[in-house]
Amino acid sequence: MQQFDTIALMLKKNRAGYTLPRELYVGEEAYRFDTEVMLRSVWLFAGTVAHAKAPGDWFVFELGNNQVIIVRGRDNQIRAFYNSCRHRGARVCEAASGNSPRLICPYHAWTYGLDGKLLAARNMPDGFDKADHGLVPVALENVGGLLFVCLADNPPPFGRAKQDIAEQIAIYNLDKLKVAVQDDLIEPANWKLVMENNRECYHCDQNHPELLKSLSTYGFGKGLPEDGADDVVDDAAFDAMLAAQRQHWMDLGIFHELVEFPEENGQTGFHRVARLPLANGAVSQTLDGKSASRMAIWPHGLDEQSSLSVWTQPNSWHHFCNDHVVTFSLTPLGPDKTLLRTSWLVHEDAVEGVDYDPAHLTAVWRATNAQDSYLSAVNHRGITSDGYRQGPYSVEEKLVDAFKTFYVDASARALG
Amino acid sequence: MQQFDTIALMLKKNRAGYTLPRELYVGEEAYRFDTEVMLRSVWLFAGTVAHAKAPGDWFVFELGNNQVIIVRGRDNQIRAFYNSCRHRGARVCEAASGNSPRLICPYHAWTYGLDGKLLAARNMPDGFDKADHGLVPVALENVGGLLFVCLADNPPPFGRAKQDIAEQIAIYNLDKLKVAVQDDLIEPANWKLVMENNRECYHCDQNHPELLKSLSTYGFGKGLPEDGADDVVDDAAFDAMLAAQRQHWMDLGIFHELVEFPEENGQTGFHRVARLPLANGAVSQTLDGKSASRMAIWPHGLDEQSSLSVWTQPNSWHHFCNDHVVTFSLTPLGPDKTLLRTSWLVHEDAVEGVDYDPAHLTAVWRATNAQDSYLSAVNHRGITSDGYRQGPYSVEEKLVDAFKTFYVDASARALG
Amino acid sequence: MQQFDTIALMLKKNRAGYTLPRELYVGEEAYRFDTEVMLRSVWLFAGTVAHAKAPGDWFVFELGNNQVIIVRGRDNQIRAFYNSCRHRGARVCEAASGNSPRLICPYHAWTYGLDGKLLAARNMPDGFDKADHGLVPVALENVGGLLFVCLADNPPPFGRAKQDIAEQIAIYNLDKLKVAVQDDLIEPANWKLVMENNRECYHCDQNHPELLKSLSTYGFGKGLPEDGADDVVDDAAFDAMLAAQRQHWMDLGIFHELVEFPEENGQTGFHRVARLPLANGAVSQTLDGKSASRMAIWPHGLDEQSSLSVWTQPNSWHHFCNDHVVTFSLTPLGPDKTLLRTSWLVHEDAVEGVDYDPAHLTAVWRATNAQDSYLSAVNHRGITSDGYRQGPYSVEEKLVDAFKTFYVDASARALG
Repeated sequence: MQQFDTIALMLKKNRAGYTLPRELYVGEEAYRFDTEVMLRSVWLFAGTVAHAKAPGDWFVFELGNNQVIIVRGRDNQIRAFYNSCRHRGARVCEAASGNSPRLICPYHAWTYGLDGKLLAARNMPDGFDKADHGLVPVALENVGGLLFVCLADNPPPFGRAKQDIAEQIAIYNLDKLKVAVQDDLIEPANWKLVMENNRECYHCDQNHPELLKSLSTYGFGKGLPEDGADDVVDDAAFDAMLAAQRQHWMDLGIFHELVEFPEENGQTGFHRVARLPLANGAVSQTLDGKSASRMAIWPHGLDEQSSLSVWTQPNSWHHFCNDHVVTFSLTPLGPDKTLLRTSWLVHEDAVEGVDYDPAHLTAVWRATNAQDSYLSAVNHRGITSDGYRQGPYSVEEKLVDAFKTFYVDASARALG
Repeated sequence: MQQFDTIALMLKKNRAGYTLPRELYVGEEAYRFDTEVMLRSVWLFAGTVAHAKAPGDWFVFELGNNQVIIVRGRDNQIRAFYNSCRHRGARVCEAASGNSPRLICPYHAWTYGLDGKLLAARNMPDGFDKADHGLVPVALENVGGLLFVCLADNPPPFGRAKQDIAEQIAIYNLDKLKVAVQDDLIEPANWKLVMENNRECYHCDQNHPELLKSLSTYGFGKGLPEDGADDVVDDAAFDAMLAAQRQHWMDLGIFHELVEFPEENGQTGFHRVARLPLANGAVSQTLDGKSASRMAIWPHGLDEQSSLSVWTQPNSWHHFCNDHVVTFSLTPLGPDKTLLRTSWLVHEDAVEGVDYDPAHLTAVWRATNAQDSYLSAVNHRGITSDGYRQGPYSVEEKLVDAFKTFYVDASARALG
Repeated sequence: MQQFDTIALMLKKNRAGYTLPRELYVGEEAYRFDTEVMLRSVWLFAGTVAHAKAPGDWFVFELGNNQVIIVRGRDNQIRAFYNSCRHRGARVCEAASGNSPRLICPYHAWTYGLDGKLLAARNMPDGFDKADHGLVPVALENVGGLLFVCLADNPPPFGRAKQDIAEQIAIYNLDKLKVAVQDDLIEPANWKLVMENNRECYHCDQNHPELLKSLSTYGFGKGLPEDGADDVVDDAAFDAMLAAQRQHWMDLGIFHELVEFPEENGQTGFHRVARLPLANGAVSQTLDGKSASRMAIWPHGLDEQSSLSVWTQPNSWHHFCNDHVVTFSLTPLGPDKTLLRTSWLVHEDAVEGVDYDPAHLTAVWRATNAQDSYLSAVNHRGITSDGYRQGPYSVEEKLVDAFKTFYVDASARALG
């Protein structure tokens, strides 16, 4: 392994409430450190059960030099394997996704079961044992339908995140959803800047007209009252509104206290779960505030004016509406190149063109993603400058600081 | 900072009258050394006052990872700043040039004055002081309308260059000119080879038919008599011609002795200033030798058959004709990629299509630049070879040797 | 020179019968090691005498940062020189091939003879000696018309390969052939994987339908009887067939014992030479098994149903048919980028469209090359994975192991 001396030095320059030193955002060494060390030491969101609905369905998750095959077995278990044949190392799955009864290497036809076991290999020398040559497994956790993988030899404990998330998203029943649309957007910025961009709405007012249509003036990254948002609203009326909302959600049986990146064993929090009201009478995150799909995906119909959001460190966020789910994952492709994969899930029985219109379903987040891509690129390019200085986060950027802190802590642990 | 051991070693292999060792021309380390160390230690030509004529006009100068905003203030002073917001580091100016009453970051709307002071930043925590968060300044010198910047923390003294250049170009009154045409040409060669190419005309005869139309058989890089050019002309007639020319320039009040990269404090010279006759009765550097613009830019009309040239180390050269100015600047974009920016300036009142034709104005240097780009690329590619040996400069390449020596001396000083 | 510590460490992880460690196949360090050290220490196939048929004909062979001009002199000797002018290092030959009475640098017209001697250089300082400034030579061996170069200062002895190869290919008289078609295919894989792909036919059955039409069920990479191929054929009938074939070739005077990468001075073998029967009554490596050209290139006419093949380490293979020769050379262009140059040679008097149809001539190998390019890319991409493990070669891959062993041995020697 490379030494990553610069990384170690720069991690020590971290400063609470301030951005990271330049060398951690830009450059080849930071990219190598992130993909070879830091991101291999933590759990990463890779997709959902809807991405591999039937036995034999598989898709590929890519991180740096690694491709991971995520495949549903005949026993309906979802497993993960490195995409490298045990013969001469070829990629077994060349497409981005597919369905196969067995996994057959295109090079010399070595054949694996969906559970990774080597089933056939022609003309091998004496002493060759198939049992020693199965696909190399990768750790995978299915959290209420969200799939997380970890490329570490000894993955860290998943902790209470699994319970917190699974408990609240269970009503959206991801096993009954399908992927309606999936977008891959390559952003010309370091992945950490794309993450920081996701963790605040300080930039929303001047950049996201489409998103603001259904976005509550509080909630979301804009900040809950305790974030200082109470400066801009009348306290008494606001408190009354919050109390009414809380009672309504209790009546529906969907109320939970905010889960705010809880620390565990002294480690920075992994997850945030929050139910948030929609604005302007919207019942879904759409341009007109109307439903994106005619088929509800939860037990409470299509009229509820709130959605549930889940954020995880260091690479995903998700919004659960009454009628659809939208999930986002980030993976670095280079020092200044990040893949943002956005998937819109609807009820498995919903019919395109009848129950939902893909353009309507995706309009808000396609526009918002494109705007955020531009902003992240502008951010990245400016940070390369010798005139860059670690800068102070505003009051509305405390979740950016939480991400940054998770990154610094996980990096320091991974460096040992 | 990286160690640049190879660079230090190779600088010691420098040999008077010979080209540099391969490692200084090609490769990633030389590029990083040049952009991170050498070129940040010296003054660089960045543009002219005509590139930022009115208050609020700005343009971006780029060197390696750095962008510098060069902006004219309400007080008509031209200043330079790193293009990086003090909040989270975003680029404040994303375009190549523009006019703005204030400099507003596109990300979170932090707002700066044209003098770089932070004017507005929303919702910052207690204790935040705007006075501490202005744009980071970069040193700038306005030399008779030519703008030079230096990215060093402590720029070297500009020395007598400022006086020598300003004194001679004053009559061309750059404050009254405008940019008629600007070309950005990316040459597939190391910037030092593009510079070496500029500093000799040993290659002109077989490569530059357009340039040779108005180029004196002596003068220019072809060599003044003291360069050995007297070998090819009849001495007595030549001396008489030179004496007549000198008298003519004295009569006009525009005669100056040749300024030939004068040493200062034992340091290699920075600048060369020379008035040179044009050939074949030409009054301007055009294909037909006729004026490029109907409006004279100096006090002596359109008929004078000479032009004034200024060369500076390590990245610019300029030709002042009766009717237009053409300026050239080089900046490295990669180990084998160089930006040549050529700007043609005419009188601010000259009207395109009436007083000047851009095609006629630019024909000679567009052709010559393209030819030089090819030659520099051929040079670069050949130097990568293990068969490359440091080669001897010809008698006509003494200004190449002067550039090379400036580079070696400045590099050694910057390495400390 | 760089240290290549990782390379040295990984060479020690070599394991007989298994693929190399990942770091030797992929990554920047392996590429630099191969092009700067390993491949400069051995003989490389660069082209044939047919590529430079007449005096003044030259072509360029490229390896990493080096271009080598291979040129036929007025004396019909073929010589090799680094493509770098001794003045300022420019490339003397910019095209891929050409014919020139002298080699003239395009930059300043320094002029060299076809034997590399400097003939002219204008206006050089006193003391300059042309005799010291000829083109830098590169070692070249003409082996029966196949041209091999070595970029080492002290090339290794060519050994018995020269005699073995020249002796058997003499009847195909390369001096009387011409290049009918040349293809440059850039494969997105490390060159060693493209080589490994060439050295086995374990992958042929499921990937190469066109090649299999004329490919003997044994022979070729599929394995001679002693490779285990006798497992799949009836022994007695097979032995009888082999004996008859041997007698037939003896009668023609073209029989030779198999030359199977013979060791020399304890060093891994460089070459393999084998006459192999064609399948299905084919007389040439074509889709329909018929002749590719009407003009025989050897003394025994067009009906013989066999061809002669030559394989050399580490970068070439060649098939000699009755009517044409096809030669292949590999050179790395990057860590995951390899140039495969394929040349089809026919009789110099054969007329395109009359005696041969280029599409018919090239169909089998164009299809096969494209298939192998895909497979090598799939192989390369999978090896980058952290899930890659050194894998076991099958019984049919013993020549892959021979290549790998040559690579490891030559690399260890070159590292010293």
